[in-house]
Amino acid sequence: MSELRHRVKDGEVSSSDEKPPPQSNPESEDDELPPGADLSTTRQLSQSSDKTTEALDSALKGLNPRWRNWIIRGIFSWAMIFFFFLIIYLGPLALVIVTLMVQIKCFHEIITIGYIVYKSFNLPWFRMLSWYFLFTSNYFFYGESLIQYFGVLLQRTEFLRPLVSYHRFISFSLYVAGFVGFVVSLKKKHYLKQFTLFGWTHVTLLIVVTQSHLIIQNVFEGLIWLLVPVSMIICNDIMAYMFGFFFGKTPLIKLSPKKTWEGFIGGALSTVLFGLALSYFLVQFDYFVCPISYDDVNNKISYECERHPVFILTEVNLPTVAQKIFSVFGIPWKTITLYPFMLHSISMSLFASVIGPFGGFFASGFKRAFKIKDFGDTIPGHGGIMDRFDCQFLMATFVHVYYTSFIRAPNPQKILQSIWLLTTEEQIQIYNTLREKLTLRGLILDRATNT
Amino acid sequence: MSELRHRVKDGEVSSSDEKPPPQSNPESEDDELPPGADLSTTRQLSQSSDKTTEALDSALKGLNPRWRNWIIRGIFSWAMIFFFFLIIYLGPLALVIVTLMVQIKCFHEIITIGYIVYKSFNLPWFRMLSWYFLFTSNYFFYGESLIQYFGVLLQRTEFLRPLVSYHRFISFSLYVAGFVGFVVSLKKKHYLKQFTLFGWTHVTLLIVVTQSHLIIQNVFEGLIWLLVPVSMIICNDIMAYMFGFFFGKTPLIKLSPKKTWEGFIGGALSTVLFGLALSYFLVQFDYFVCPISYDDVNNKISYECERHPVFILTEVNLPTVAQKIFSVFGIPWKTITLYPFMLHSISMSLFASVIGPFGGFFASGFKRAFKIKDFGDTIPGHGGIMDRFDCQFLMATFVHVYYTSFIRAPNPQKILQSIWLLTTEEQIQIYNTLREKLTLRGLILDRATNT
Repeated sequence: MSELRHRVKDGEVSSSDEKPPPQSNPESEDDELPPGADLSTTRQLSQSSDKTTEALDSALKGLNPRWRNWIIRGIFSWAMIFFFFLIIYLGPLALVIVTLMVQIKCFHEIITIGYIVYKSFNLPWFRMLSWYFLFTSNYFFYGESLIQYFGVLLQRTEFLRPLVSYHRFISFSLYVAGFVGFVVSLKKKHYLKQFTLFGWTHVTLLIVVTQSHLIIQNVFEGLIWLLVPVSMIICNDIMAYMFGFFFGKTPLIKLSPKKTWEGFIGGALSTVLFGLALSYFLVQFDYFVCPISYDDVNNKISYECERHPVFILTEVNLPTVAQKIFSVFGIPWKTITLYPFMLHSISMSLFASVIGPFGGFFASGFKRAFKIKDFGDTIPGHGGIMDRFDCQFLMATFVHVYYTSFIRAPNPQKILQSIWLLTTEEQIQIYNTLREKLTLRGLILDRATNT
Repeated sequence: MSELRHRVKDGEVSSSDEKPPPQSNPESEDDELPPGADLSTTRQLSQSSDKTTEALDSALKGLNPRWRNWIIRGIFSWAMIFFFFLIIYLGPLALVIVTLMVQIKCFHEIITIGYIVYKSFNLPWFRMLSWYFLFTSNYFFYGESLIQYFGVLLQRTEFLRPLVSYHRFISFSLYVAGFVGFVVSLKKKHYLKQFTLFGWTHVTLLIVVTQSHLIIQNVFEGLIWLLVPVSMIICNDIMAYMFGFFFGKTPLIKLSPKKTWEGFIGGALSTVLFGLALSYFLVQFDYFVCPISYDDVNNKISYECERHPVFILTEVNLPTVAQKIFSVFGIPWKTITLYPFMLHSISMSLFASVIGPFGGFFASGFKRAFKIKDFGDTIPGHGGIMDRFDCQFLMATFVHVYYTSFIRAPNPQKILQSIWLLTTEEQIQIYNTLREKLTLRGLILDRATNT
């Protein structure tokens, strides 16, 4: 979970939301150690995570550590928010690059934990392989996205054409080369370590690379599909913290003892309201709602579009229950005029506040399992990048699936794109089949002939 | 690797291809196990793997164990081959069901090793979750395949329609429910175990489910895409063993000390020749070369088709080098008439014999890492199902990627299928756009008007 957390009032304030289990009682944990694992070394991760920029440190050295930490955390929170706006201003390409950088850093943080836990610093060749797998999977996923959205454009450049046509084969060959490399690199004394880290690498790829690829697909579908969910997670975190701080009484889940039902419900309601407002605001701008596509006529990347119906003001019938409720208050509303996207934003808000936190619980549990406080020390006062993105990944996947299931539907434009990738004869063949079938069904008058 | 292995002549014969490292010298291995490691329990897997059907055992009790094992292994080899032919005779549906069963059994074997190694039999709720994840990923992948090949058919059945339209959303929801279940099931003392097994489950899904899904896709594209590669792997194993047995001298790879260069090269050459012959034979029958599709006109599943060009006799120009070689022998061949599929079979043979074995090396290394002899004891004399399928999975993925990259190309039929899933208006819209663009390019004469 990102940003601040809701805590029971009497809970102590710490720089990280989830403290590792008390070190004073290691026996109760150690009986569960699986083969190959050695957690004594992971403390080097926890210890380094309080490192912060030295200039700031010296400027604040007069303050007590608790306040110093709050100030550092605050400064870097605002820095991140500013950075976020800057990237949005810079546009989709910047967002794609930043997503890639975040992904690489998250991969680095998780993989480093694996190296430390399984003491694999004596396997340099293997560590290179992990990065190689990161490269191949990115090559595959980014390639897929680029081909899907800009296939026609890429096909025009002579030297890119084979890369487009044989993208999957090339990606697979690259992966297999890594796989063979892994088998060749197996060393008798390190089998167990190597297989464990092979699995570790692949689970990390599954979590980080596939999901960050979905973030990029969301960006391509229109900036709003990134901005709204990302902001919702941040909003829910802050508001759940606030509600928990002021009204929190009833504990929510054992895994995160500081979470309360009051924070949970307050966060959810705030996120729904915030999501509606943000959606209403962003929907006004073509820049946010248009998918990024290649404009075949003007030969440039286009940020304009014919708006998808969810981004057009629509009169929606109120459910009878709602009509009755309004009529009790003497309001005779039978319909309401809104952007349908706002209704979808409610689904996203609910996911962000009900299921989203489980991404954070999962990350907390993971950190506890390996007795580390944070994933890294990239952002002073916040921990690692992964600590701030744990819920964003799951949210991005939800939005992607939601979008493809309820919004996109089979897209005539996409189908046309794939038709233009065919040979001329096949294009004519499709045209003729379409003409025949549509004529048979009486939908068009058949007077066309093809040469 | 499946079936028999090639071994250096003086190597001893064992029931399994890869013997675990000698137990007499455990120190050399155990120094890789950091504190907490416990592989002692895995021996219960190795020990149980020689269990065989009792009736056979008692019938053969007069023989010495080595011969008894050979006979049992032989009987079950032939039983498997017979079973294989039977399934092919029964057709694609039987193949899909058997693939699913094999996949479930492989999953079971791998996951059981995880449970034993990480002593997780005290986590019953978690073990159920593994199976739940197996179910959700199969639901997702099988659904994707069915929709891709029979979408139009499925759409016709009223109650299936939402399952088709929202397939990804439903699959994602099912998965997320499991994910939340995992987080909720986390128990303080078992974090590390639970996360390790969570990873173990997902890597197993990645290896077994995704790849077996590709096997099924291959079946849908035509039985030949399954039969040829599966037979190649078997042929390569047997022939590499034979060549190794009779001519083997030069060791190939440390990981499998019984493998020799002679076996490797002999196996590869035999597989290429065998692949050519088998391809030539199978190509004669529509039953093997036709993709399975839904015949919209006759309203039934169709095993007939207009043959793909690779399955039609074609005159191919010989490369100049080959022409020169033939002319040295006084043969003036400039072209050769063959089924292009036979050329593709050479690529597959080479993969089966050069890269394929690495699937087996990988499995061997895995078994050594966890000090087990076989994955299970499902097939008497052979070990677990996974022991026989380790190379088949990688091969299936190769064939799938190869097929989609070099054979399928964007398929007008597939595109038409996706057009019929659109609304009538969208179909007309596509028709009109096609008409305009094709008219502009002078490819059709525009005299059509739509109502």
